[in-house]
Amino acid sequence: MADIPPQIEALIDMMARLPGLGPRSARRAVLHLIGKREVLMTPLAAALAEVARGVRNCARCGNIGTDELCPICASDKRATGEICVVEDVADLWAMERGGAFKGRYHVLGGTLSALDAIGPEDLRIPQLVDRIGAEGISEVILALNATVDGQTTAHYLAEALEPAGVQVTSLAQGVPIGGELDYLDDGTIGAALRARKRF
Amino acid sequence: MADIPPQIEALIDMMARLPGLGPRSARRAVLHLIGKREVLMTPLAAALAEVARGVRNCARCGNIGTDELCPICASDKRATGEICVVEDVADLWAMERGGAFKGRYHVLGGTLSALDAIGPEDLRIPQLVDRIGAEGISEVILALNATVDGQTTAHYLAEALEPAGVQVTSLAQGVPIGGELDYLDDGTIGAALRARKRF
Ligand SMILES: [Zn+2]
Ligand SMILES: [Zn+2]
Repeated sequence: MADIPPQIEALIDMMARLPGLGPRSARRAVLHLIGKREVLMTPLAAALAEVARGVRNCARCGNIGTDELCPICASDKRATGEICVVEDVADLWAMERGGAFKGRYHVLGGTLSALDAIGPEDLRIPQLVDRIGAEGISEVILALNATVDGQTTAHYLAEALEPAGVQVTSLAQGVPIGGELDYLDDGTIGAALRARKRF
Repeated sequence: MADIPPQIEALIDMMARLPGLGPRSARRAVLHLIGKREVLMTPLAAALAEVARGVRNCARCGNIGTDELCPICASDKRATGEICVVEDVADLWAMERGGAFKGRYHVLGGTLSALDAIGPEDLRIPQLVDRIGAEGISEVILALNATVDGQTTAHYLAEALEPAGVQVTSLAQGVPIGGELDYLDDGTIGAALRARKRF
């Protein structure tokens, strides 16, 4: 656009690349930030830089954190023996908001997808298999989205985990067909967890 | 939320304070940024810090820029003799996208509002009056929102500018009742400018 300082235009372009923001809402967000320079814009810049510098994936479960182990893996308050498998960190957070699961997680980093050519070797599946014996896991709860790719991945995991002799269950009642965990209300996720069934 | 690293939680809280983003879209935006740490998150942090450090209001018109005069006031390509009065920078940008106005601007910084107790002394009205003589202005175009407060402000300005002997016009045809400039398509703004009438 004519006669907008290039630094501000570059900032708007970056903001417009965030999910849920288009060009117009990016412009409004930048003007809002400029109007709250000291109380919001400068702290936000610092927070982004700090997280960008410090964030890393948990060496065990793939969740994000700032240390080698994420807060959940590092906590001694989480139940041992159960692993909840999720597609990504957004779904892990959705499970945590539900508050019903007390064990630890395993973040696959995606789902199998013929269309996107994502095979088992592209996900953190070998690491999951390794954890069964190493951590003495007795139950793996598959909390995958009720989509075609999610369910394909669930079936693949159930077979891959069979030799380990671990019980494999999945979220059942309450997850609507085609539904994505991150869109569900907290109570629904809790109910689905409690009513989980053998896979 | 339980077991999210505090730095990431603080970042989500700040993002959720931007207009158009709620808690859920803030979470999604932060996860998106973490997934694009090097190509988006770090550059965005730097761009925010740079703009927060460098941005200032133009000493003449109130627009934002990085120097004492904004790019529009500093440009020798803009027509002299005409000032377009807008409520805020978002409306100035909307006028610029329309591309029909070739003169310079004056950003009021708000509108008169009985409800919010905003009087003439809270807006950049004295500076506007000063500019008429100092810059040899022959026409002031009021491009204020077609809201009650916008039109109250327009009437006030028309009276305040009367002693200066300057022609006062306003955007007319094309601006819908209750409409806000920043929501209009570019063509509508251009048509409204061309069909401006004496106020
Ligand atoms: Zn972990
Ligand atoms: Zn200016």
